[in-house]
Amino acid sequence: MNPPLDVVRARVAAAARVLVITHISPDGDAIGSLLGLGLALRQAGKQVVLACADPVPDTFLFLPAADEITRQPEGEFDFVAVVDVSDPARMGSVGEGRALSLLFDHHLTNPGFAEFNFVDVASASTAELISEYLQPLGLPLTQPVAACLLTGLVNDTLGFRTSNTTSKTLGLAQALMQAGAPLYDIYSRSLFKRSYSAVRLWAEGLATLKCEDRIVWASLPLEARKAAGYGGLGDGDLIDVLTAVREADVALVFVERPDGRVKISWRAVPGIDVARLAALFGGGGHAPAAGAEAEGTLAEVQVKVIAATKALLKSSMHNA
Amino acid sequence: MNPPLDVVRARVAAAARVLVITHISPDGDAIGSLLGLGLALRQAGKQVVLACADPVPDTFLFLPAADEITRQPEGEFDFVAVVDVSDPARMGSVGEGRALSLLFDHHLTNPGFAEFNFVDVASASTAELISEYLQPLGLPLTQPVAACLLTGLVNDTLGFRTSNTTSKTLGLAQALMQAGAPLYDIYSRSLFKRSYSAVRLWAEGLATLKCEDRIVWASLPLEARKAAGYGGLGDGDLIDVLTAVREADVALVFVERPDGRVKISWRAVPGIDVARLAALFGGGGHAPAAGAEAEGTLAEVQVKVIAATKALLKSSMHNA
Repeated sequence: MNPPLDVVRARVAAAARVLVITHISPDGDAIGSLLGLGLALRQAGKQVVLACADPVPDTFLFLPAADEITRQPEGEFDFVAVVDVSDPARMGSVGEGRALSLLFDHHLTNPGFAEFNFVDVASASTAELISEYLQPLGLPLTQPVAACLLTGLVNDTLGFRTSNTTSKTLGLAQALMQAGAPLYDIYSRSLFKRSYSAVRLWAEGLATLKCEDRIVWASLPLEARKAAGYGGLGDGDLIDVLTAVREADVALVFVERPDGRVKISWRAVPGIDVARLAALFGGGGHAPAAGAEAEGTLAEVQVKVIAATKALLKSSMHNA
Repeated sequence: MNPPLDVVRARVAAAARVLVITHISPDGDAIGSLLGLGLALRQAGKQVVLACADPVPDTFLFLPAADEITRQPEGEFDFVAVVDVSDPARMGSVGEGRALSLLFDHHLTNPGFAEFNFVDVASASTAELISEYLQPLGLPLTQPVAACLLTGLVNDTLGFRTSNTTSKTLGLAQALMQAGAPLYDIYSRSLFKRSYSAVRLWAEGLATLKCEDRIVWASLPLEARKAAGYGGLGDGDLIDVLTAVREADVALVFVERPDGRVKISWRAVPGIDVARLAALFGGGGHAPAAGAEAEGTLAEVQVKVIAATKALLKSSMHNA
């Protein structure tokens, strides 16, 4: 249950020096929510410091105040807001030893660890939830605030494409556009556009594509990363390309790591829980999207993981 | 200027036997608009025949009444509605010799060739325009109508991603979801999901990827289609994958045809007009998306087209 709005509004109104924190390994919803709430608080006359224990990904640096996000917030704060953080450990160093005033999150597992907790699993993004409560809490929806929140909303729904995107999501996105958020620009810059080297990495991965028993998978050996000239550590979102294959219910990407481990990413259609698979290999995640890292060569890990995935699909079919 | 709503509403109310026509080579907006308007008219008590001179693409066959769309409409009609058709020739055989009562379209070049013309260039899709006028014209927005219209809207905006997607688009999409249209299902089935062979075709094309002077391009020789096991004639929307490359302003795909011709597709960021390029090679289209077919081998056509594209980009930069 949400805390009483009038109490929270009064507490927000009284705040003077505010710290806003988002989670480690920040994604679009983390950064968009951090900046959206932070700029709204600043617009309301507060001194605001924005914090994240990890660097901001390049694709979100175009957002207003993104260059202000610090890994070492200094000074004292009379109000600490936390956004998109599912448990306290995910604040990393910037959250240590702090009294937390306000929390906005949409993760199922969130226990609600601040004084005032807005946790709504039905929200497709934390930015959506903040968009909904901004004005009830007495905070202004200016153009920069709207742009940041729409970035969070668009990224966490993969462009209104995830199964938790509701009519409410679209209504709030409309309100953000009406407040001046440029959807096309945000969608292009933060979600759709890729580096040439990332698309070349897709080419390397797609050259290994296999589809069998409703599972589609691809691999990225170390030399693929080199051939593509790709500097990143992940799969460049190749997994999202694989989820397009109609003949598959589960998509998998295997990324060879320089340390001799293999990173595994799973995606599944609604009704199949790949987090259970990831747990078998020491990882975790959500039912439709999970990951793990395993010891072994690319070939060894593939054989084990594909076998486990086939077994899960077989049992899912029996249970369906 | 739109015709007076009360006059059109009275004419629609009086109609008994209605033919609805969409354009040849139908896309998602053509089929979604055809079915959306047709089912709404049927729901309002009219006898309705749905016509398209070309077959319905497989990806839209899941829509209600899609299997009823005929290439040879029979009998007499006292009311003919035309949707998403930019000029009369694009109706093909199903439109020949007919008096046209009502037109819904959003193409810039549409002269307005029916008795009552709703032509709005600001609409991101014809389905969006129909969604807006359905209830003012006394037609019901039932669940099947909403599902068909949302399919048109989602497909023509490539999932709310095109630069003409407005806050109004999102508001109308919200209303369609509230009327029961399943966004996730529609987005997955009609726009996002691909056959395994289409993704294999992407792999073949991406293996040829080049990027130079802000142009990115790929080729699909006949043997690529064979290696991928791809039965279609086009590029499987590989061009949309290429538009993701941040370092390019123009994306190009060359498809080798069995008749010794090469199909060329261009896409450009806002501000660059590739329809001018397509016209040089006997084709056409819109500023951001155009196509042509040229005589010659893949290599010959590539050299000419890339040179012309580089020249256009150079002159665009001078003019900017």
